[in-house]
Order: sequence, then structure tokens, then C-alpha cells
Amino acid sequence: MRPRIPRPTITRLCILFRLLEDLLIEGKTRISSTELGTALGVRPHSVRKDINYLGEVGDIGSGYDTARLRDRVRRKLGLDRRRNACVVGLGRLGSAILAYERFANSGYTIVAGFDSNINKLETIRTDIELFEAYEISDVVRRKNVEIGVIAVPAPAAQEAADRLIEGGVRGIVNFSPALIRHNVETVNITNMDIVREFTILSAHMTLDRE
Amino acid sequence: MRPRIPRPTITRLCILFRLLEDLLIEGKTRISSTELGTALGVRPHSVRKDINYLGEVGDIGSGYDTARLRDRVRRKLGLDRRRNACVVGLGRLGSAILAYERFANSGYTIVAGFDSNINKLETIRTDIELFEAYEISDVVRRKNVEIGVIAVPAPAAQEAADRLIEGGVRGIVNFSPALIRHNVETVNITNMDIVREFTILSAHMTLDRE
Repeated sequence: MRPRIPRPTITRLCILFRLLEDLLIEGKTRISSTELGTALGVRPHSVRKDINYLGEVGDIGSGYDTARLRDRVRRKLGLDRRRNACVVGLGRLGSAILAYERFANSGYTIVAGFDSNINKLETIRTDIELFEAYEISDVVRRKNVEIGVIAVPAPAAQEAADRLIEGGVRGIVNFSPALIRHNVETVNITNMDIVREFTILSAHMTLDRE
Repeated sequence: MRPRIPRPTITRLCILFRLLEDLLIEGKTRISSTELGTALGVRPHSVRKDINYLGEVGDIGSGYDTARLRDRVRRKLGLDRRRNACVVGLGRLGSAILAYERFANSGYTIVAGFDSNINKLETIRTDIELFEAYEISDVVRRKNVEIGVIAVPAPAAQEAADRLIEGGVRGIVNFSPALIRHNVETVNITNMDIVREFTILSAHMTLDRE
């Protein structure tokens, strides 16, 4: 039986993947777990332990072959699959995400934007197709959208999530402060509320002083 | 000796704090750990365990007094302290954060924005004072900025962080994909790279299917 990869390991392997891509651009063809640990801010032992979940990955004694390790992470985590995404809520933040140029060469394509305000839809200049909010689940299904970004105010967030999940979305990035509830086991939600992050940083500042 | 609050508990208590504020707005004056657990998506036992780090907080049998618990979390984590923040990098994302209206009643004030491009500084309409990037450490020190938001492209992120820390910032929210290094023990960095979150969600989609 294959061991299930723990969630924190999945997160760390995704960060490792992005680092390996950068290292290859810099022309670094071999890399040790010590160097990886320094770059990632974790112990070399933890790096090796995470990498062990990928199965056989070449000689550890002389370091890893960067390209081979990158390919192994990519295949194991399915990161070679291109996925479609959409943005719900086209205020300043939603519009900024819609226009974010880093998606282009990262394997993700924003294929739709939604807002409940028709006037807003008419004023945004973009090549991405825009729709009214009531069309979310239809468009998501039709365009095979797998990831949804929620950038609406808190009171509208749960409804947006429900419609996205109804359409078949399996991953949600929630920029609103609302705690979203759902009962679909295969749906994952990431919360990216900046005020919450300020609060957490603030708490650390207080407690570090104690 | 007082027990040190573990980092994940600090994060959960900050989320609990925001939830309690919402509950008070809704007029809910008493709340049980079971209800809190449901709202937060964790077990009631974990909620009680986290709350125990705050010391004595009223009768558990009949539920918590919402206002009293909120005040306790706020005081313990120092969330009643107003803090100044700044934004470095005023592209679409940085400008959206600069204009984010939720900061206003959350205890944080954005007191400065920075960009290396003078033309950009001249075209942004805002009441917040804007400065050239070379002024970061001076302005941060002068305006007593404690939290810095980094919204510059990856190659400029480390330099931005160095200048913020030099000025005395103790918390950084990093929207760039760069892994920032620093050797000041009292500085905390939160990474909010949206492409990385897409990658992590994508990996979960792949592995959940196995």
C-alpha cells in the first residue's frame, strides 16, 4: 500500500517545485538537500523526508539531479496538467487578479470573470470573457473550470462558493473574510484574507514581546 | 511559568476573534464550543483547548459569554493595538490593497505606499502618502510602520523586505512568489502567492483522485 502524502508535505512539495523551476532557470543542474533546506528555511532532513514520498529519486549522496527531481514532483502532484480558473467579484482586487500576468506561464488559464453588477462588466477592459453572477454554475460547467477565486464582499461569498461547487469547481481561493462552509469532501478551500494575516502578524508581535 | 502559545493556536485564536466579532454584530451573546467548532470547521475539544491558553474565561458548562471571550482574545493577543502598515509596489495588486476599505475599521492604517516608478506615483489617486522606493526605511522609521505588504515582482522582493526590516517593520505579507530570507528573529513573514495556492489546490485535486 502506498502511504498517503500528508497535507503539510503536499504544501512543501509545491513550494519545492517552484524553487526547482527557478534553480533550473539559473542553470543549477545538481542540488543537495542542505542547499534546498537553506533556500526553503527548513532542515535538510525534512527536505529528504518530503522527497521520499515521491519514491525513488536518484542518488542522495551526490545531491539531486534538479531537472529529474522537478519532473518527479510535477508528475506525482499532477502539476503538468493545465487547469482553467475563474474570478468571482470584479472590484479592484478581482480585476487585479484577472489581469495577473503570472498565470500565463504557470499552467493556469483564467477563462471567465463574474460580477453581479452589469455596469462593472461593461467598463472592464480585458480579453477574458465576463458574465453575470447568476451564470456561474453554467459557465463553470461549460468551460470546465476547476479553480475559482472569490473576491466578493463577505456577505456574498458563501453564495459564490455554492455556485462554483455546483458547477464542478474543486478548488477555491477565498479572498473574502467569510468562513465558507460546504459538504463536498473533494473540494479544497484556501483562505487568503489579508486583514486576517495582519491580525495573525499582530498577535505574533505582541506575544514575541512577552 | 506561563505556557508559550503554539503558532497554530495563535492562528486559530485570530480566526476565532474575527468570528466572535461577527457573532456580536448578529446579537449572539452566548456561544458554546460546539457551535464555535461547527463555524470554524474544527472539533469542540480543539476550540476549548485553544481557549484554555487564554487563562480563566468564564463558565464552560453553559457556553461562553461572547463579548467577554472576544475581549479576552483581544487583550491576550494585543489586537486592541492599532498598527500602521505600508504597501511596497503599486501595480494593480498593490493599488488594490492600498484602496482596500476593510482596513479602516479593523485596527490597521495604511500610512504609506512605495514604488520605484515616479510616473506611477504621480498617476495614482489616493489620500495615502506615496514615496519613491529608496525612501522605504526612512519613512517606515519616521511613521512607525509595523507591517509591510510586498507587492513587487519577485526579483525586487528581497530588497523591499531588507529595507522594510531595516526601518523596523516586524511583520511582512509577501504577495510575490520570492522566498524571502532574513535573520531577524522577531520578524514574521506570511506568504500569499496566489499562483502557489493554485499549485497546492491542483496537487490536492490530483492526489484526491488516486
